[in-house]
Amino acid sequence: MKVLVVNCGSSSVKYTLFEMENEKKIAWGIVECIGLPKSYYKRQTAVTEEKKNFVKVTSHSKAVELIINDLLDKEIGSIANINEIDVIGHRIVHGGDRFSRSILVTKEVKKGLKECFSIAPLHTPAHYAGILAVEKMLPGIPSVLVFDTAFHQTMPDYAYMYALPYEYYEKYHIRKYGFHGTSHNYVSQRAAAMLEKPLNELKLITAHLGNGSSITAIEKGKVVDTSMGFTPLQGVVMGTRCGDIDSAIIAYIIKIHPKYRNSEALNALMNKESGLLGISGISGDMRSIVKAAVENNKKAKLAFEMLCYSIKKYISSYYGILNGIDGLVFTAGIGENSPMVREKICVNLHALGIEMDTKKNKEHSIKERFVSTADSKVKIMIIPTNEELMIARESKICLHAGINSVSQA
Amino acid sequence: MKVLVVNCGSSSVKYTLFEMENEKKIAWGIVECIGLPKSYYKRQTAVTEEKKNFVKVTSHSKAVELIINDLLDKEIGSIANINEIDVIGHRIVHGGDRFSRSILVTKEVKKGLKECFSIAPLHTPAHYAGILAVEKMLPGIPSVLVFDTAFHQTMPDYAYMYALPYEYYEKYHIRKYGFHGTSHNYVSQRAAAMLEKPLNELKLITAHLGNGSSITAIEKGKVVDTSMGFTPLQGVVMGTRCGDIDSAIIAYIIKIHPKYRNSEALNALMNKESGLLGISGISGDMRSIVKAAVENNKKAKLAFEMLCYSIKKYISSYYGILNGIDGLVFTAGIGENSPMVREKICVNLHALGIEMDTKKNKEHSIKERFVSTADSKVKIMIIPTNEELMIARESKICLHAGINSVSQA
Repeated sequence: MKVLVVNCGSSSVKYTLFEMENEKKIAWGIVECIGLPKSYYKRQTAVTEEKKNFVKVTSHSKAVELIINDLLDKEIGSIANINEIDVIGHRIVHGGDRFSRSILVTKEVKKGLKECFSIAPLHTPAHYAGILAVEKMLPGIPSVLVFDTAFHQTMPDYAYMYALPYEYYEKYHIRKYGFHGTSHNYVSQRAAAMLEKPLNELKLITAHLGNGSSITAIEKGKVVDTSMGFTPLQGVVMGTRCGDIDSAIIAYIIKIHPKYRNSEALNALMNKESGLLGISGISGDMRSIVKAAVENNKKAKLAFEMLCYSIKKYISSYYGILNGIDGLVFTAGIGENSPMVREKICVNLHALGIEMDTKKNKEHSIKERFVSTADSKVKIMIIPTNEELMIARESKICLHAGINSVSQA
Repeated sequence: MKVLVVNCGSSSVKYTLFEMENEKKIAWGIVECIGLPKSYYKRQTAVTEEKKNFVKVTSHSKAVELIINDLLDKEIGSIANINEIDVIGHRIVHGGDRFSRSILVTKEVKKGLKECFSIAPLHTPAHYAGILAVEKMLPGIPSVLVFDTAFHQTMPDYAYMYALPYEYYEKYHIRKYGFHGTSHNYVSQRAAAMLEKPLNELKLITAHLGNGSSITAIEKGKVVDTSMGFTPLQGVVMGTRCGDIDSAIIAYIIKIHPKYRNSEALNALMNKESGLLGISGISGDMRSIVKAAVENNKKAKLAFEMLCYSIKKYISSYYGILNGIDGLVFTAGIGENSPMVREKICVNLHALGIEMDTKKNKEHSIKERFVSTADSKVKIMIIPTNEELMIARESKICLHAGINSVSQA
């Protein structure tokens, strides 16, 4: 059984073709800078090396066309016929409160997705275009939508509601949704495997730390709370996002800088010019920040400390609401690859039963591993995330179960 | 020795005259609705009952005049001569990062205070008018400024900085300041007395829960972090304030409702129409919310749960960054008087060593008391706050020490 995972960003289409018998990748690649002067196509297969070509690609539809034709190519392709693909899994950033699980695409589902345009205007139209393009290129093959927000839909109302006038929830669906759900879901399942216990006997905190970062509290496999909110801005300090601030600062900023009365400009300030980049003035990339901090750049050091401190606060907060935890998981770019960040977060958390083995933490590896001391009450794990595989698995399950009604979603 | 404590709000002047030998109140009262049609004067002394008169009061200056003349009144007054007052203590809401401790008023200090107008435009001009009026009515008697923000000035930079572009801190002084400092300071001192240990051997979390609420992490008598921020909006859910939200919600709101591109309208929405009131649609007063929740009003129940949950998260978060605590203090209107709120917050926090004696917690008292079980690792205390007395004490200390230079501040 083969599953094609498609991830349409605002100006890119990423794909991975999986053989589900062994969960191995057959082919993968990305079309980047769609509609921009220097659009290109980068691809690789299990048996060939990475190739990159500059190709004029003007739309998501053209990108999908390029990818499918490439997969079918007689010389360099990976499949002989489109019917070798059993199901397509689409990554969808925001499912609002309409979609609480993965779902097979139907007319009704597409209509529901269209109604999510307004709350994620950058991503959802691109996803939608991708779904239509895939339907055109792969007629008759079922598609599944896998939502970044779905895993978080188990949060109780007192955790997902904001204390704004209630009508903002009723009329405009303003509530906490949470993101990176596919990743939190994947690593929580892997953590249970590593701890050799069923998920429904575990209390976990998963820290997905990348360019965007979110922390999630998971009890018995269900999300209880998560740090990102209505959008992926809320929560911890990130590469270029400010995370939690006093919202009255915005009222102050729009007073002194009227240009920020424009919603896009304000979002750009908070999402693109803040975080590590805003504080350090150097970079939004943790590797550059750590390098500069080690060289004693004061603002880089401050940015590093602020990011780690904000994560430490969320982990502590979720430790409390879960009334203790069994495991703490680090994943994604920074979570998997920055021993300095992990150590800074875990130091002096003995009161939470968190004892890091700092030597193990420093050892380089790309494998799942424990980095807590033998007697640490809380097991600290590093688990490389695999959102594509998770989407492929979800698509397979959905296809077999025939989950295709919005009411079931 | 007598100290007059003066608290000028945006449309009120509150005062308390203390005899410092025994720290007892001699006289106290308030002029309310200054400049409004129904302004009135309410006053009481240690030997007379409360009296209320409607009096036309058009300015803070007139209010101070009324109060001083009343204190000097031959029949109902409490002092024979202004020189009986040794020092006046003014409560100041926001001292920016210029004032980190209480300070005697000089020309230089007044200049410094004027420079704080822009970050607290509702409060500071009223404070300033009060200082001038007191100087006019009580010439030659020294005044001391006691700041709500000062106690929090020990926070480390990684706790008080926001991850916005650094220039917002440098140019506009946008950072976390924290509020209710006088109250957190007072109850932390009382907690040390109750625990019979010096403050510098203790780790405490103090929860000032009133109309406005803030939680503070205190180590060795010094604030490490606090939930309120640049303004008193940030942090936990409050009576009419939203507390923490995803700031990108603001970008969304100003897009769908252009009227909120106005700074004052936006502040009013978040500060006056949100919180318990916004969620319940009933009231911003916890007593009304509890009553409605008990009668099974769903939105009131949700509002109650959201408020308690947000406090629980902060307590847990600060438990982590302090790496364990010795005591948890509840104070102010809700903190002192709502057993339901206290219980909801403390339930299921065993992992933090917090064990409430729910029976003791329900007993009504206006005294300082413990409400944890005998074997609770963390001692839970209820401590009635006394900001006026704290201001009087600070004023006395300042007078004796002669702290009057901004550079010392």
